[in-house]
Amino acid sequence: MKILLKIAYIGTAYCGYQVQPNGISIQQKLNEAAKALFGFPCDIVGCSRTDSGVHAKEFCATVAKKGTDSLETSIPLSRIPLAMSAYLPQDICVFAAESVPNDFHARYDVKEKEYIYRFFDRAVRDPFEVERSCHVPRTISDEALLRMNRAAKYFCGSHDFSAFMAQGSKVKSTVRNVTRAEVYRDGNAVIFRVSADGFLYNMVRIMAGTLLDVAYGKLCPEDMTKVIESRDRTRAGSTMPACGLYLNRVIY
Amino acid sequence: MKILLKIAYIGTAYCGYQVQPNGISIQQKLNEAAKALFGFPCDIVGCSRTDSGVHAKEFCATVAKKGTDSLETSIPLSRIPLAMSAYLPQDICVFAAESVPNDFHARYDVKEKEYIYRFFDRAVRDPFEVERSCHVPRTISDEALLRMNRAAKYFCGSHDFSAFMAQGSKVKSTVRNVTRAEVYRDGNAVIFRVSADGFLYNMVRIMAGTLLDVAYGKLCPEDMTKVIESRDRTRAGSTMPACGLYLNRVIY
Repeated sequence: MKILLKIAYIGTAYCGYQVQPNGISIQQKLNEAAKALFGFPCDIVGCSRTDSGVHAKEFCATVAKKGTDSLETSIPLSRIPLAMSAYLPQDICVFAAESVPNDFHARYDVKEKEYIYRFFDRAVRDPFEVERSCHVPRTISDEALLRMNRAAKYFCGSHDFSAFMAQGSKVKSTVRNVTRAEVYRDGNAVIFRVSADGFLYNMVRIMAGTLLDVAYGKLCPEDMTKVIESRDRTRAGSTMPACGLYLNRVIY
Repeated sequence: MKILLKIAYIGTAYCGYQVQPNGISIQQKLNEAAKALFGFPCDIVGCSRTDSGVHAKEFCATVAKKGTDSLETSIPLSRIPLAMSAYLPQDICVFAAESVPNDFHARYDVKEKEYIYRFFDRAVRDPFEVERSCHVPRTISDEALLRMNRAAKYFCGSHDFSAFMAQGSKVKSTVRNVTRAEVYRDGNAVIFRVSADGFLYNMVRIMAGTLLDVAYGKLCPEDMTKVIESRDRTRAGSTMPACGLYLNRVIY
């Protein structure tokens, strides 16, 4: 067996999930903590490669002894979250741990992931929202919110999402199956929540930018079909900043 | 006339609201921003003296030209929040401004203040709650929550709150009128919300510590009467840390 960790982090201080030559990554911090806790070097495999500044309410990663596909430890599974968190900085924590078979793969075995994009839409910034949402200084009206939600529904289903992929990305297939997409208000924030079997590079941030164009009247909800069918990145909206994006749930 | 500002801040980086010889205060930052915006030195009078590390969702303060009780400016009132926030660090903002008469006093004219104390009660810390709530590692059950709420109700009314005041504090009267007190769950946090015509030094933080004693069975709700009537600080609970405390609303 190996161990599957559920992790939460504030991405602001990191260069993203994956180890990079320049900058400190979440993966590096997990590597250091696992080595300190288990007493030997470990391989950490994450469920996805979140970008610099992106947050996670639930990120999943497996730990195995370096160069192997299993982990042996006398530490009870129930004590691992607290014990490993003690070796991590304040902006990263492990909040759950479970055992998984040796052949389990944290990335390839993902069935569905859910992301949240958080817009803060009051004129003046809110200190509690700084780096935790994307500040859009024009208020989104109730009517605009309904339009955004209507537009989001067009994402549902299996589509070629090339129009919503950062240009220059290389993937075998640009078809993804979106299982849920909705926009709703949460206090002073507007939330875009989307689930899919997988996401293309920058897909959620481009979807969020496109929905903002709908909010501000540059696009209408019915335009979504044409934008998706165009497979043309220039037809979709801007790539919104990383600070508003949260990996929210991972289902295996 | 002078100007009443509504301000929000994260208190973590500051030595408290009031100017101190050592450490940077919220008041100092407001002073600097007001001078930069209006072009002359100003007097800032705040609604209360929050301690180091305490946050504010709504703090009120007046601005007048230094040594006077009025402010003349050509800047429209509606533009002041955004303009003044531009001169403030990211963890402080002015979100509203209104004009008040020259004899208005930001502290003495307060009719009611509302504070919130935020407990985070999951075993493992949450990065998003660090320095924004008080982490209590034992979960508060639904039943314990109901007991806390029942205990909080004993605070309501006009009482001598000497038992809930930091020892050595000097005030003319230790009687305060609590108009509302309740405990409820908000996701992974437990909230204690309390309103009164005024608060003694550390009063909310000691109330919060006493309610935690009720949650963990050291006190029962009915003990509150005896604790209040004792006027004895040693009968109440611990002073909880500043990071869980928020000034939430100020009514004039």
